[in-house]
Amino acid sequence: MTRPTPVIYDCDPGIDDAIALLGAFVSPELDIRAITPVCGNQPLDRTLRNALQICELGGRDDIPVHAGCHRPLCREPIHGQFHGATGLGNTVLPAPRKQAEATGAIACLADHLGRAARGEGDRITLCCLGPLTNIAMALRMYPEIAGGIERIVMMGGAFREPGNRTLTSEFNMLADPHAAQIVFAAGLPMTVLGLDATHQVMLRPEHVTQFAQSSGRIARTVAELMAFWDRNDAARYGSRGGPLHDPLVTAWMLRPDLFESRPARVFVETESPLCLGQTVADWYGKTGGAQNARIVTRVDAAGVIDLYVGLMSRYRERGAA
Amino acid sequence: MTRPTPVIYDCDPGIDDAIALLGAFVSPELDIRAITPVCGNQPLDRTLRNALQICELGGRDDIPVHAGCHRPLCREPIHGQFHGATGLGNTVLPAPRKQAEATGAIACLADHLGRAARGEGDRITLCCLGPLTNIAMALRMYPEIAGGIERIVMMGGAFREPGNRTLTSEFNMLADPHAAQIVFAAGLPMTVLGLDATHQVMLRPEHVTQFAQSSGRIARTVAELMAFWDRNDAARYGSRGGPLHDPLVTAWMLRPDLFESRPARVFVETESPLCLGQTVADWYGKTGGAQNARIVTRVDAAGVIDLYVGLMSRYRERGAA
Amino acid sequence: MTRPTPVIYDCDPGIDDAIALLGAFVSPELDIRAITPVCGNQPLDRTLRNALQICELGGRDDIPVHAGCHRPLCREPIHGQFHGATGLGNTVLPAPRKQAEATGAIACLADHLGRAARGEGDRITLCCLGPLTNIAMALRMYPEIAGGIERIVMMGGAFREPGNRTLTSEFNMLADPHAAQIVFAAGLPMTVLGLDATHQVMLRPEHVTQFAQSSGRIARTVAELMAFWDRNDAARYGSRGGPLHDPLVTAWMLRPDLFESRPARVFVETESPLCLGQTVADWYGKTGGAQNARIVTRVDAAGVIDLYVGLMSRYRERGAA
Amino acid sequence: MTRPTPVIYDCDPGIDDAIALLGAFVSPELDIRAITPVCGNQPLDRTLRNALQICELGGRDDIPVHAGCHRPLCREPIHGQFHGATGLGNTVLPAPRKQAEATGAIACLADHLGRAARGEGDRITLCCLGPLTNIAMALRMYPEIAGGIERIVMMGGAFREPGNRTLTSEFNMLADPHAAQIVFAAGLPMTVLGLDATHQVMLRPEHVTQFAQSSGRIARTVAELMAFWDRNDAARYGSRGGPLHDPLVTAWMLRPDLFESRPARVFVETESPLCLGQTVADWYGKTGGAQNARIVTRVDAAGVIDLYVGLMSRYRERGAA
Repeated sequence: MTRPTPVIYDCDPGIDDAIALLGAFVSPELDIRAITPVCGNQPLDRTLRNALQICELGGRDDIPVHAGCHRPLCREPIHGQFHGATGLGNTVLPAPRKQAEATGAIACLADHLGRAARGEGDRITLCCLGPLTNIAMALRMYPEIAGGIERIVMMGGAFREPGNRTLTSEFNMLADPHAAQIVFAAGLPMTVLGLDATHQVMLRPEHVTQFAQSSGRIARTVAELMAFWDRNDAARYGSRGGPLHDPLVTAWMLRPDLFESRPARVFVETESPLCLGQTVADWYGKTGGAQNARIVTRVDAAGVIDLYVGLMSRYRERGAA
Repeated sequence: MTRPTPVIYDCDPGIDDAIALLGAFVSPELDIRAITPVCGNQPLDRTLRNALQICELGGRDDIPVHAGCHRPLCREPIHGQFHGATGLGNTVLPAPRKQAEATGAIACLADHLGRAARGEGDRITLCCLGPLTNIAMALRMYPEIAGGIERIVMMGGAFREPGNRTLTSEFNMLADPHAAQIVFAAGLPMTVLGLDATHQVMLRPEHVTQFAQSSGRIARTVAELMAFWDRNDAARYGSRGGPLHDPLVTAWMLRPDLFESRPARVFVETESPLCLGQTVADWYGKTGGAQNARIVTRVDAAGVIDLYVGLMSRYRERGAA
Repeated sequence: MTRPTPVIYDCDPGIDDAIALLGAFVSPELDIRAITPVCGNQPLDRTLRNALQICELGGRDDIPVHAGCHRPLCREPIHGQFHGATGLGNTVLPAPRKQAEATGAIACLADHLGRAARGEGDRITLCCLGPLTNIAMALRMYPEIAGGIERIVMMGGAFREPGNRTLTSEFNMLADPHAAQIVFAAGLPMTVLGLDATHQVMLRPEHVTQFAQSSGRIARTVAELMAFWDRNDAARYGSRGGPLHDPLVTAWMLRPDLFESRPARVFVETESPLCLGQTVADWYGKTGGAQNARIVTRVDAAGVIDLYVGLMSRYRERGAA
Repeated sequence: MTRPTPVIYDCDPGIDDAIALLGAFVSPELDIRAITPVCGNQPLDRTLRNALQICELGGRDDIPVHAGCHRPLCREPIHGQFHGATGLGNTVLPAPRKQAEATGAIACLADHLGRAARGEGDRITLCCLGPLTNIAMALRMYPEIAGGIERIVMMGGAFREPGNRTLTSEFNMLADPHAAQIVFAAGLPMTVLGLDATHQVMLRPEHVTQFAQSSGRIARTVAELMAFWDRNDAARYGSRGGPLHDPLVTAWMLRPDLFESRPARVFVETESPLCLGQTVADWYGKTGGAQNARIVTRVDAAGVIDLYVGLMSRYRERGAA
């Protein structure tokens, strides 16, 4: 077997973050070096607590969790609308025994990525499931760490699709557009899973049943989370269910063959009240600058669902062990 | 036969304007009350002259032509990139004998629409092929004329498609975004043929040949114009040819059954340097306001091409007459 | 005596507009060709009616009044805060017998200025007391009329002074910033009486008494208007009273020797929510472009008050006649 | 004698920064805990080197110097125009033996201010001479340190004065407007020495002579720096010389009685191209929010010059020692 890929999960759990993490936890292909929650779907204290609880639920209290930024760079904080009171729907997980590390997310990123940049450690892939505040702050404070980033694989943005929070903008980009623009402008290898990708993978009620049957020890929680996720907006999405946003990041890490992408240069709107947080793609080199991202345009939805059913079933085996 | 529909063509010829007008000229379903050229694809003196020449070419020097605005409302003028030196490709038409009317476009619109609003004349459909400066100015100066507008059928905007002049914006909207926002905010019945529609109808080389054979007296000119229009950008458009932008307005007037549309509330970005001129659609009632447009989402491309081949062939008959 | 100067008063009465007009009405140095009310301190129907009533009060129903624009170019209308329910404080003037002309303000401006531009009439000085919507619209529709404008003498803007409606912006500029920017960018000779000038001339309670005693027939009305004008904000203005905004335009026309000014290039902010409507001056040629205005920096306040006491006393003589 | 006030100098030397620091170095009233250079008048490597050299020149290599941010938060870097090739005019100081600390400015601020916030150390006054990037980053990363800040005394902004870099904006604010807005919005006690204050204190040629004679060991350097500072723009400033920007911060720390200030709520423009970096003051509570700064409106210029002559003369005594 090839060496596992070193990753850091930067996230704001969040229901779909939870599923993305639970999938990653049981993937030997990934070496999760740290989790860095950020203010996003919920305020930081909540995303931090949720991250700790999800680690315990998934049996991975070995992964260090470092608290990230408590608010966006410039704009006032906004939070998600579809994640319920706890940020995990109505699911109440046990109070975490596990604690956050003493050092914060920026220091954690600076440490791992700085060592990699100096050739003293592995280059890290950043799996970004929330607003990009932590990454932007780390790049501003420690520009030299760019050299330690293997790739950024992120959920965020909307290109041909309209936004999901405003007319033009996807939540993660809208929640910190200045941070997003900083990251896109950094010239790093990036894979972008925006709404154009995630709306192709709807978690439908029949899938929820399938997951509930396969997930063993954590089945009840997974079923609860997934059931809460159903948007009941068939008019918009063409079917019942909710789009599998963040889990696509883990899926891309494990099975990039399930995805097609196109290169582009991406800009983020940081000023206009109408378009704030919009991701604008230059697909045709109009602006003259270098391409800074691969935007995922097609997803093998059935392949992704199958992948996750397989991942979750590993919890049954583990639970039995 | 039903009474012909009274229309005014507000335009900035422009090659595709020329084809839209030539199609309308031979359509008994349309009662063209006036043509009102505006600064757009070319400066006003050029679009005015082109309009006069197209009237002569099409044998319709009976239609009054009124000069419109010489520049956009607020921004500096920009002009089209694909219309050649004369605005009609390389085609040099004879100097027009026909002259523009003494009254300008705003006065013309105020007269026709004002009478209609007072119940003293027919309500008029505005067929808009260029920047909306004339319409916006008329609405600002004579707000009462809104009641005389049956519908605005316009080429402009880009919704899921990227822009054709900047990353986000279609030329007509970008050329006068403030005017466009004024018109969309006026609460009038509007049909919007944006790039999402026009990129579905490519004028391919084989069509050009077909048109050249069928257009009789004006065949050489039509072939020249259309040949110039070929973008040679198969990578972007999926085929050779150029998108039939403005002719779709005439096509919609004659055969609305060839088009599918969805209602939305449209806003135009007037501030952001990145997104200036972008048309933003609220498809799902997020902003709470009333829908102000029907956006064409699907076009029967073959039907439109056939329609135009039929229209152009009428010039053969006429030429023979 | 030299020939009187031909002027058009573009205004939005408004208490201080009323005083400016009443002063002009009895000045043989001024040949008032027309009054063109615009939406501003009050909606158009009110500013139009007020203009007609002020003409009657001042015994000048010979001056044609032409209704101007009913709303600003791009932004939503705002109205003044210090002009009371009627726009003339609590003063209720008799219903006007005089009527507005059938032609609107833009046509009036186009007519007068167009003839002047063609050398068929006198060049006109525009005395602008309100938002510049009418002037901007006329310049956009009939650019050739610029040659018929002798000078624009306007009340508006704030340079070193903070704004009076928002932190940065004076009301007339804020009420239609796009129009203001169009006018400043037109390259015409302009004299700008902003808050830096008008805050130097406070109409204090003792002045009100003085005016009431000298104004004869219209004394009661003048006293009422002026008393309503008292801001009672000595903390801000350094004294009781209200700043004599619009009357400075008439004063400058009659006695330019009472004013000092400096040339500058002026821009108007049209985008930022924080600074919308701010007038920004380039005093030192930093931007490279030509100067487009003389900004009044010092006013002989006592001289202006004396001038107006003298003007108002003419109504006593007239009333006696 | 009272206990010296603990301060950190956040700066971007820069000629006037050098003078401010040299003044502070010989002031027993100030306990300089650290110097944190930032990208500003010069790129970071230059401001850092200059800070180290100035410490040596002033005989204060005991003060730790921590490198700050290498670029602004969001906008692209700009640098000063009046500081010559080295950032210290044409003055070439010896290569510094002193080195920067291993820890950066944000960590330094977090350490000092964090201890103060927890009651484990003295609250610190931040003397800010450059763009506010370091302070904003520290507040975003470690919001709890706000409680350790006694006051921010900053050079920056322009209120009634026009800007010195653009029409509206002073250099430090323009160089990182987003950082400035973050700091003003933090609700900390702030004293603002903007151009309204600093343009009152011109360093005239006769002062330069006076300083040269009094400064002993460092006289030649001080004279060189000051001579380079002469703007030769008497038309703008009303006299020869250059405004003493940054030294006013040290002067305010030592002799606040030489300054008058007024409370206000300050906002910084972060969007408009015309007004970017403008500081907008709400002097009259119009916006309803709490006042967040005292803006210095008057300075006893002679008193400040005398203060600095006195400070520099201490170097003569020291040099003799």
